[in-house]
Amino acid sequence: MSPFQTVRGMRDFLPKEANMMRYIESKARKIAGLYGYKEIITPVVESYKLLAAKAGEEVRLRMYTFKDLGGRMVALRPEFTPSIARLVATTLKNEPKPFRLFCVGSLYRYDEPQQGRYREFWQSNFELMGTQKPEADAEILMLTGDLMKSVGLKNVFFKVGHVGVLRRIMASEGIDEKMQNSVMQLMDKKQYQDALEVIGKAKASQKCLNTFKRLIKLKSGNFSEVLKKIRGHVKDYEEALNAVENLEEILTLFLDSGCKIGINLEASFARGLEYYTGMVFEAYIPEMDIALGGGGRYDKLIELFGGESTPAVGVAHGLDRIMLAMQKQKVGLELKAEKKVMIIPTKKELKNVALKISHILRKEGITAEVEVMGRKVSKALEDADRRGMDYAVIVGERELKENAVVVRDLKKREQSTIKMENIVNSIRNELI
Amino acid sequence: MSPFQTVRGMRDFLPKEANMMRYIESKARKIAGLYGYKEIITPVVESYKLLAAKAGEEVRLRMYTFKDLGGRMVALRPEFTPSIARLVATTLKNEPKPFRLFCVGSLYRYDEPQQGRYREFWQSNFELMGTQKPEADAEILMLTGDLMKSVGLKNVFFKVGHVGVLRRIMASEGIDEKMQNSVMQLMDKKQYQDALEVIGKAKASQKCLNTFKRLIKLKSGNFSEVLKKIRGHVKDYEEALNAVENLEEILTLFLDSGCKIGINLEASFARGLEYYTGMVFEAYIPEMDIALGGGGRYDKLIELFGGESTPAVGVAHGLDRIMLAMQKQKVGLELKAEKKVMIIPTKKELKNVALKISHILRKEGITAEVEVMGRKVSKALEDADRRGMDYAVIVGERELKENAVVVRDLKKREQSTIKMENIVNSIRNELI
Repeated sequence: MSPFQTVRGMRDFLPKEANMMRYIESKARKIAGLYGYKEIITPVVESYKLLAAKAGEEVRLRMYTFKDLGGRMVALRPEFTPSIARLVATTLKNEPKPFRLFCVGSLYRYDEPQQGRYREFWQSNFELMGTQKPEADAEILMLTGDLMKSVGLKNVFFKVGHVGVLRRIMASEGIDEKMQNSVMQLMDKKQYQDALEVIGKAKASQKCLNTFKRLIKLKSGNFSEVLKKIRGHVKDYEEALNAVENLEEILTLFLDSGCKIGINLEASFARGLEYYTGMVFEAYIPEMDIALGGGGRYDKLIELFGGESTPAVGVAHGLDRIMLAMQKQKVGLELKAEKKVMIIPTKKELKNVALKISHILRKEGITAEVEVMGRKVSKALEDADRRGMDYAVIVGERELKENAVVVRDLKKREQSTIKMENIVNSIRNELI
Repeated sequence: MSPFQTVRGMRDFLPKEANMMRYIESKARKIAGLYGYKEIITPVVESYKLLAAKAGEEVRLRMYTFKDLGGRMVALRPEFTPSIARLVATTLKNEPKPFRLFCVGSLYRYDEPQQGRYREFWQSNFELMGTQKPEADAEILMLTGDLMKSVGLKNVFFKVGHVGVLRRIMASEGIDEKMQNSVMQLMDKKQYQDALEVIGKAKASQKCLNTFKRLIKLKSGNFSEVLKKIRGHVKDYEEALNAVENLEEILTLFLDSGCKIGINLEASFARGLEYYTGMVFEAYIPEMDIALGGGGRYDKLIELFGGESTPAVGVAHGLDRIMLAMQKQKVGLELKAEKKVMIIPTKKELKNVALKISHILRKEGITAEVEVMGRKVSKALEDADRRGMDYAVIVGERELKENAVVVRDLKKREQSTIKMENIVNSIRNELI
């Protein structure tokens, strides 16, 4: 590989894209603030053991793992959850619940690069910990909806399921957790036949197999109807029925909240990560078949990291994918257009005046660039024009004797001689 | 190492610190906007060759280097400059100059951890490329001063030097660049005797040794005086005299700009990185003896990365250290205090109303947390109090019949019954 290109799967964000990424990040931070989620920042480099502990095999094998110079096995984080679980199990363990935690940053997985998938990717992550109540799950759905809307996406919808339904049927049939994980992973990959075979081999009843077959086909945008049908199919599994009820509560609360996002309920929807225990969901737009974010409930994870039993629900939003979605839907950024001013000295000896004026303008919140190439005024003006500057301040000897400069409106192509003390005012109020 | 702690040298930022870090980052981004620097985001993982190409040995040996799963030698970036040089030499090579580029993020070096030094650390980085003019150098000093002031730091001063003075004396004496680098590194570590020995062994003249000895002692806050003395000492080295003149121009422009930052001029000041060719500087506060940031001119670096000859000047600000400096100077963050509201349903069946109200408040920009622990009102109010919330909205059956809720001012300990449509207005205008 040439050293003068990015490593495969990594990418540069040029100014336009970097702007967009920071815009999405700022919206996520804004939503975090509005919902009372406190930001934390955890390291990119964590111990391999921590990151591998509960990652599914697929993630574990694709981690960037290496020994540091002290011989420690470390890896680049492939997700935020282990770091947060570590914090909750240690530093934060005596803090009163609930925790609402937010983080945002880059993550690393050695996946095959494709559209919307990079080996360095960005996520915002929200976790609500310490409660099993359905309003917590509803809140995670709500804030995800709010984030998608706040960046300007349209027609966002959620695919929703509940791994408790499937897991509890299997548990009733005596299928152990490891086997359940295999089934859930196959379901996640839509390898339904293989999943049914595993269930068959695990000596589950014919009734169980039939129930799974029915659930696999069951999906619709009319969630009350799907819920009713699931209830019919799992009526002999009491624990599974509780899961259905939990899902109904969550979705009803979400619906009533006024956060208008469509719900596609899929009875057999399973997310790849092993640690989910309840509601799971993903966010989509019609234009893309990759999820913009996803999450769910994981009530046992914190214990596995050595913490107290801490029910939790969370979501990760894929910022690269949200950016792609915005590009597909041609969403513009809602940014205030700040005035931009170029300051051009007509001769070398007036550079110091140019710098001084730039300093005054910036103090007033006006973007000011000083001509630093030593170009003639005409060349510098051309350049200012090309780069979409709004005004040029031309510092000339003659005007300076009167304590004034020439201010040129580059859009209107008009100019006036303005006293030094009036520059800010003229630019701000477009008085040229 | 226990997997349940951070890896040595890495650290978590809890909410208070994370807030502070993001605050500093946002100020750096604000300064970038005001000076017309475009943000770019480059990957944390780059090819080892790129990162090692021009890093001094010290940095190179402390990089986090490893093979990725595709067998590529990669490393975690220890600084931003190689990534930016790569971009400028490739993707951006045909863009018209000057470039003003900004980036911010985390960097990685396996250094011995100590106060203000972590193995994962944060920097904001500004580069102005395509011009050799002294106003460019002055601009980098100005924006560094503005950043330090904008986060609230007081008594910031710059230590300034010019590696051109020392290097050009050595070049006149026929000392090659490699040997020059050794001398500069020893000077950087204040191992002046060793530096003089290297010069001696390189068969430099006695005059050269004497000049170096004089320059080593030369430093003061009165920069015109120091400049005059340097000029006297190096009067026989024409190239070095040009460097002195360049430094004088830069400092005079900076002084005239109105950016009031003290300058300590040190004739023998050298920064560790080998690629500097001109003015070098570091920012300090009196309370700390580690630099809060530093940079300088490096006119030959881009060529070394395969790009066109591109003179450049830049600076990196250590955000962790700026944070430490703010803590030492007890600087508070200038953040708008947003109203925070807790919404508490008096019974389970009113959760949906609570969520709905929360959604309405957030749409109006008010932070709203819903009680998600299923606690009684009194417990939930205690918790809201403890966490410094401003208001509680209590959703009760009786009030709801009148389409109203109880709004409680938690600071004043007063409450009123408020119609649903007036909640936002009451809270925003403190009408409880």
